[in-house]
Amino acid sequence: MRDFSNDHSWLSVNTATVRKQEGVETPLPRIIEQCAARGIRAISPWRDQVAAAGLSEIRAQLRNTGIALSGYCRGGFFTGSTAQSRQAALDDNRRAMDEAKALDAPCLVLVVGALPGALEGSPHYKDIARARNEVRDGIAASLAYAREIGMPLAIEPLHPMQAADRACINTLAHALDLCDELDPADDHTVPAMLGVAVDVYHVWWDPALQNQIARAGKRRLMAYHVCDWRLPTRHLLSDRAMMGDGVIELRKIRGWVEAAGYAGYSEVEIFSDMDWWRRPGGEVLDVCIERHRAVV
Amino acid sequence: MRDFSNDHSWLSVNTATVRKQEGVETPLPRIIEQCAARGIRAISPWRDQVAAAGLSEIRAQLRNTGIALSGYCRGGFFTGSTAQSRQAALDDNRRAMDEAKALDAPCLVLVVGALPGALEGSPHYKDIARARNEVRDGIAASLAYAREIGMPLAIEPLHPMQAADRACINTLAHALDLCDELDPADDHTVPAMLGVAVDVYHVWWDPALQNQIARAGKRRLMAYHVCDWRLPTRHLLSDRAMMGDGVIELRKIRGWVEAAGYAGYSEVEIFSDMDWWRRPGGEVLDVCIERHRAVV
Repeated sequence: MRDFSNDHSWLSVNTATVRKQEGVETPLPRIIEQCAARGIRAISPWRDQVAAAGLSEIRAQLRNTGIALSGYCRGGFFTGSTAQSRQAALDDNRRAMDEAKALDAPCLVLVVGALPGALEGSPHYKDIARARNEVRDGIAASLAYAREIGMPLAIEPLHPMQAADRACINTLAHALDLCDELDPADDHTVPAMLGVAVDVYHVWWDPALQNQIARAGKRRLMAYHVCDWRLPTRHLLSDRAMMGDGVIELRKIRGWVEAAGYAGYSEVEIFSDMDWWRRPGGEVLDVCIERHRAVV
Repeated sequence: MRDFSNDHSWLSVNTATVRKQEGVETPLPRIIEQCAARGIRAISPWRDQVAAAGLSEIRAQLRNTGIALSGYCRGGFFTGSTAQSRQAALDDNRRAMDEAKALDAPCLVLVVGALPGALEGSPHYKDIARARNEVRDGIAASLAYAREIGMPLAIEPLHPMQAADRACINTLAHALDLCDELDPADDHTVPAMLGVAVDVYHVWWDPALQNQIARAGKRRLMAYHVCDWRLPTRHLLSDRAMMGDGVIELRKIRGWVEAAGYAGYSEVEIFSDMDWWRRPGGEVLDVCIERHRAVV
């Protein structure tokens, strides 16, 4: 297992962690500057941040600062109550793959979607098995283009508390079943085009976690996200804790991930309306570095 | 599948649904009166409510009104950081079984516990595998007395969002694995002493749900709880919706449960600080009856 205690070269920052500081949107170029100033070598930015700053501008800034992507946020949301809405999702995922490619991302992270309309509070249907079928079909359709341009897709299983409105793939086992179905590993020397993004926040509770991480192996493990589970959790989406401030066994889980062959970044992704988003971004990044060394 | 559209003889009311109305604690005898007045044939009361009213008084009132129990809430919380605290939990579960027996409950429902201290915000340890081992040992130890007095124990898997602080058994599969280990079904003509309480709120998201309900079968299905999943869910514990107001496929899931042989009550259990607990209890019960007929 890699020793992170003396450097933070394998720390990546998901830019949602430091974008909404003190109620003000921090532009992505500023976040990249803040990371570069601290020797942070990788980020995972969000599409709307890139669009606001300009794709070619961000591409140039990343090259100039030597900062890589640990992933690109995000594709997915494949479900829809009409063929038209599902096709629109496929088109949008194609654009997301193009952007990811332009930014040399190692993968496009997929938040796959759930009951269409649920995020707006009014689901068009309640049949979660149907949503799961639409997700499978959407990923299958997107894989063709992913293969064409060489952009791997990483399914991120979300916590079951987000099954209705954000992602109806909620366990690593379910995500890996889809990987095996849609991107069979007939030849293990060929890189996978479909894999998983393991975020400890979503999967820490799963008694099958260790086994499923081993099953995923180096080939399917495309991204690894860290934060912590707060006690009490006051909001289903945006009350994540800083690493070390919650109950997730971070060292143990990273041990499992590395035993499976993963040797990439630990990407910090913290949604924290009530705490970390209220502090200056530089301070948050400093704490990320400290905790990455101490507890990740 | 049973037709509930014209009567509510298989409706049970978990008394947490109507105890904290409008900020005032409704005594259990009053809740029983309210149920009896509406032809509700079963309830599932909580230990503290029974203790406040007196065990023998409640026993007498239940006999006089002809109201049965669909379960008794609750045993469990087996984990502890010291042998002393774990023994105290075993002693308390023994008392809970005695009370359940005195009230002719068909089962004692187990909320098994999680990281000790977590519910108070300060976990004594973070090792969830250890907590799961302590839960297994606690159930195993309790089963001896359960067999002696003939009081079946029903493990209630809780939603993974409650894995840290309330119950570290979070899927029906995990609960049934424990049942098979601790109470093997060598002879299917003998009633199970260890089974499950299936609450749709906790398990609706699980892609393995239908298969695991079938696996449980009539023998292990000791209780069935209903409510609904609200969009958005504003609190991890107490923002459950009334049946029909959320996204859970109630008819479909009851179909699976009945196909597996379950023919008991559908017990309404709604924790709703922001909505149903703010209405008069009689009104809530009337809506429970209406929705039990229309959507359960």
